[in-house]
Amino acid sequence: MILIGERINGMFRDIGRGIREGDKAPIHEWALKQVKAGADYLDLNVGPASENPIQAMEWLVDTVQEVTLDAALSLDSTNYDAIEAGLKRCKRPALINSVHADRSKLERVLPMAKQYGAAVIGLAMDSKGIPKNADDRLVLAMEIVAAAMEFDVPLEDIFIDPLILPVNVGQDHGPEVLETIRQVKLLSNPAPKTVVGLSNVSQKCVNRPLVDRTFLAMGMACGLEAAILNVCDDELLATVATARIILNKDIYCESYVKVYKGRGV
Amino acid sequence: MILIGERINGMFRDIGRGIREGDKAPIHEWALKQVKAGADYLDLNVGPASENPIQAMEWLVDTVQEVTLDAALSLDSTNYDAIEAGLKRCKRPALINSVHADRSKLERVLPMAKQYGAAVIGLAMDSKGIPKNADDRLVLAMEIVAAAMEFDVPLEDIFIDPLILPVNVGQDHGPEVLETIRQVKLLSNPAPKTVVGLSNVSQKCVNRPLVDRTFLAMGMACGLEAAILNVCDDELLATVATARIILNKDIYCESYVKVYKGRGV
Repeated sequence: MILIGERINGMFRDIGRGIREGDKAPIHEWALKQVKAGADYLDLNVGPASENPIQAMEWLVDTVQEVTLDAALSLDSTNYDAIEAGLKRCKRPALINSVHADRSKLERVLPMAKQYGAAVIGLAMDSKGIPKNADDRLVLAMEIVAAAMEFDVPLEDIFIDPLILPVNVGQDHGPEVLETIRQVKLLSNPAPKTVVGLSNVSQKCVNRPLVDRTFLAMGMACGLEAAILNVCDDELLATVATARIILNKDIYCESYVKVYKGRGV
Repeated sequence: MILIGERINGMFRDIGRGIREGDKAPIHEWALKQVKAGADYLDLNVGPASENPIQAMEWLVDTVQEVTLDAALSLDSTNYDAIEAGLKRCKRPALINSVHADRSKLERVLPMAKQYGAAVIGLAMDSKGIPKNADDRLVLAMEIVAAAMEFDVPLEDIFIDPLILPVNVGQDHGPEVLETIRQVKLLSNPAPKTVVGLSNVSQKCVNRPLVDRTFLAMGMACGLEAAILNVCDDELLATVATARIILNKDIYCESYVKVYKGRGV
């Protein structure tokens, strides 16, 4: 399971303040904390309020890389110039988060992915919004896959995000998202990977960690390979470790929860 | 999700003693406790040490039905005469637990199911043992389905158990069991149901409840419809309630965990 730590996001008060005031302390803290918890990537999002998103992204990339290179970076923005500015400074191959199935956006993002050797999260939506069912999501996923082939981005570097909605407002999307995860693997050979922004599923729910970890186990049973999530949620990571054991991807040992990603060791 | 409470089993010390000494108290206690926790069926197993399994099964059926008819009964024995004796006394349609894909056993069990209107758990194994992969399990499941058609038992009353092995000794079976659950639904129309004996997956594991609830969520994502389990494990039942919400089988409300099966209400 590829774990993308969600915490360095300007939406969180401490990170937003750090970005505004140039205070590196909260960024350093969360970079190290998430790496220690097992993050493969650190998602960097300057937040919606940033006045200069390009400069803010550059600063975030540099600030994180000052303290760790143990995780790669996921550059999370709708501003592609900010993403490109970040990519130029990344010391390891990064992840572009994200593009959707819109021709003009794909034409901007995929050549950039190719140039910098970056992977890309492709959202199963277009300018008309998020489809209601799995079939329509798969059509959009296929458009992203076809564009990746056209622009010579390896399919292993494409992460399709089927877009899970909060279960309290878009409950009918749950089974459709699981079906999409399953069927994305049939779109091409090699297949693209699948990813979800996990905390979306539990937005404004009462039992958020319960909803998150239950959905993640279900997604993994359908072949889910990556998630943007709270890597510091121990019960969530224990669920991931257990699902990997059940899927026979890691060898069972009595301390497998601790051994997974080096947690607690 | 059809929940089959596992607790009235002579393997547990209090139940074993109750059966031996004719003490109804522990049977009454666990019948009511499991019904309150949301059991649809109560599994009744006289245990391996019983000297007179027929009489013991009759006594268990009568004893449970003295205090509740809110759950149906699952008669769990390899002694088919004991099962038949129990079926004669069941006041609601029961579940026969179990038969495997062996002609002589199917010929004994299926006509009995037809006669008493009972459902049947069919194990995906035969006299040669448990298959290593999904395909071979499905061949055996199909033999059970074909026999059910031959003996005129409705396919909705057949529960195929793909047989999960403990993850610490048969780890390679995990993905095969999940695949079997998925594909059983394609065997016939209407399809048989799927069931697992959940606690098998975590036998002698350190984190048994974690392994159980993670596997159950994964199974439900693949279409699992029933499980023999510890219905008194609150976290397990919360996982079931959450998975049902994610699968859009129950309507989300803030107290869905409590509302599910009337727990805590």
